[in-house]
Amino acid sequence: MNLVHITKGQTGVNPPVAAVILKSGRIVGFGAHLKQGGAHAEIEAIKMAGENCQDATMYVTLEPCSHHGKTPPCVDQIIDAKIKRVVYAVKDVTLNSGVNKLKAHGVEVEHVPHETLTEFYDTFFKSKHSQLPITTVKVSSTLDGKVANDFKESKWITNKSVKLDVFKLRHAHDAIITGYGTIQEDNPELTTRIPDAKDPTPIILSRKGNIDFSLKIFNQQNREVIIFTENDNLRAPNSNIKLIHLENCDVETILNRLYILGFGRVLIEAGPNVSSQFLNSNVITNFILYLAPKLIGGSGKYQFFKTDDVFPLHSLPNFSCVHTEHIDDNLKLIFKKEI
Amino acid sequence: MNLVHITKGQTGVNPPVAAVILKSGRIVGFGAHLKQGGAHAEIEAIKMAGENCQDATMYVTLEPCSHHGKTPPCVDQIIDAKIKRVVYAVKDVTLNSGVNKLKAHGVEVEHVPHETLTEFYDTFFKSKHSQLPITTVKVSSTLDGKVANDFKESKWITNKSVKLDVFKLRHAHDAIITGYGTIQEDNPELTTRIPDAKDPTPIILSRKGNIDFSLKIFNQQNREVIIFTENDNLRAPNSNIKLIHLENCDVETILNRLYILGFGRVLIEAGPNVSSQFLNSNVITNFILYLAPKLIGGSGKYQFFKTDDVFPLHSLPNFSCVHTEHIDDNLKLIFKKEI
Repeated sequence: MNLVHITKGQTGVNPPVAAVILKSGRIVGFGAHLKQGGAHAEIEAIKMAGENCQDATMYVTLEPCSHHGKTPPCVDQIIDAKIKRVVYAVKDVTLNSGVNKLKAHGVEVEHVPHETLTEFYDTFFKSKHSQLPITTVKVSSTLDGKVANDFKESKWITNKSVKLDVFKLRHAHDAIITGYGTIQEDNPELTTRIPDAKDPTPIILSRKGNIDFSLKIFNQQNREVIIFTENDNLRAPNSNIKLIHLENCDVETILNRLYILGFGRVLIEAGPNVSSQFLNSNVITNFILYLAPKLIGGSGKYQFFKTDDVFPLHSLPNFSCVHTEHIDDNLKLIFKKEI
Repeated sequence: MNLVHITKGQTGVNPPVAAVILKSGRIVGFGAHLKQGGAHAEIEAIKMAGENCQDATMYVTLEPCSHHGKTPPCVDQIIDAKIKRVVYAVKDVTLNSGVNKLKAHGVEVEHVPHETLTEFYDTFFKSKHSQLPITTVKVSSTLDGKVANDFKESKWITNKSVKLDVFKLRHAHDAIITGYGTIQEDNPELTTRIPDAKDPTPIILSRKGNIDFSLKIFNQQNREVIIFTENDNLRAPNSNIKLIHLENCDVETILNRLYILGFGRVLIEAGPNVSSQFLNSNVITNFILYLAPKLIGGSGKYQFFKTDDVFPLHSLPNFSCVHTEHIDDNLKLIFKKEI
């Protein structure tokens, strides 16, 4: 079921789904949902299996839909293809159940729960329910929580292998949020630098909207850039650039607007100010911390998490560590936000 | 060879050593060096095996000594006991080899290197060579590198299981260094709170030497406390308290003095000022970081690592991560100092 994970970040607000059709012990077809608006995993698998569908078993990560959306209901095509048995791992709590219709047409249906997939879709269901994307904040820091020394020197904290890992992380997200400060200072392209990999849509936050549109990010061919601003006078210089004017650029409003625009997985890769706002909100899903085994010291002008308010210890932003990994001499720690 | 590790912190500047005697497939004796000045591991094992030593094989973690120290040379007693064969894991580079004498008396000797033990004794050899103890800095922090919020609230950052782990850490060290500031604020006892476990000797750093001797740490029966101070006028109120006057209480001088006093393993468990001085020195061995999956934020008044100087990124204090562990919802990361 790795097909589910490799399509992360390219299905928008739709869930990644994978399906495999087995007949007489052989795989005769498989498919994955590749793109919002495109065919569902089940349909791709049915197409590949062709006439072999008859009396075959379909394994699918998520319960097949009976939903008339951008594509016709999967259950109808499963019935038409004469699939004998459907085994699914996770019940879809967000759509009308397709199981009953399958059963009514004589298709055997079995629910075989799978822990990892349950967790995976649970995150997706929560996102759909709240109308907020699955949101990951990524920070690269030293052991003492700093992203630069007091002179703002930050190149480089983490190692080259971490940089490659971050490119893969970008590929797995629909959009990447950063502050205009970072754009202005680093003039980055925010690409994945992997041949033919997807570059996430840059989302740039600039309350004041004092923007230098000659910077690289605004001049990539056919790449959409979205700017959130509180400046009503700001105008976009070309059609690639989309401005969203908000009265108040707060985290939850921004994320909700992105969800409505179809961004299902969003990565925050920003400086301390923007990162801190997101880490301090209750609406993020994951926090990925890359740690270089160094200490920066100084006064700590550039700590990755600073806030105007001081919190009592019993009400701090709280996480749970779900993954630790050595990336050469650096560490990758993945946390889920505890709400 | 776990016997080596359980005696850590109770052999002073001597190495922990373990020995086992095997005969006809059965263990007939074993021993460990339990205390500086006490019998060596080999002798304890020979005593237990008694007449079974004849024609038996002794396995020992460190090459047996031919050294006349506080106890007679081990090799003589191995020869007298008629041990047939000695297998050792690590060559002792700090003392005259005992191997030649064993061979000259017809004892078979085999060197079977063991990676973990080689590393273990390497640290010990370095310590002996530099005349500085094996020194571990322990810090409990949030993910953003803070040990308290801006209002100095610090109870508690890490969980209860971490506190138990720290008690074990204390037991494995001969001495525990802290600043007088911590003593004054927390009035701690710095014990292990494990029945019959060893409480390390408290070493208190106070340049100014303005000391309130009514605090708990100075009034524990028969427990020696050492104070390093630059205040020549300070006098000890009772015989448990030993004052060491230094012109300059710098990290290296303090550690060297402790080594000479017989402290082979020293734990730094202090506030940010003292911890930072040690972390910033080139003479510490290990850094243990307990991380609570929380973020404190604020201005970061109490970051665990702050320095007066700002370092360029290419010359930061550098470590390598040798161990990661989940302790309930907290993380324990062990780093070795890279020199």
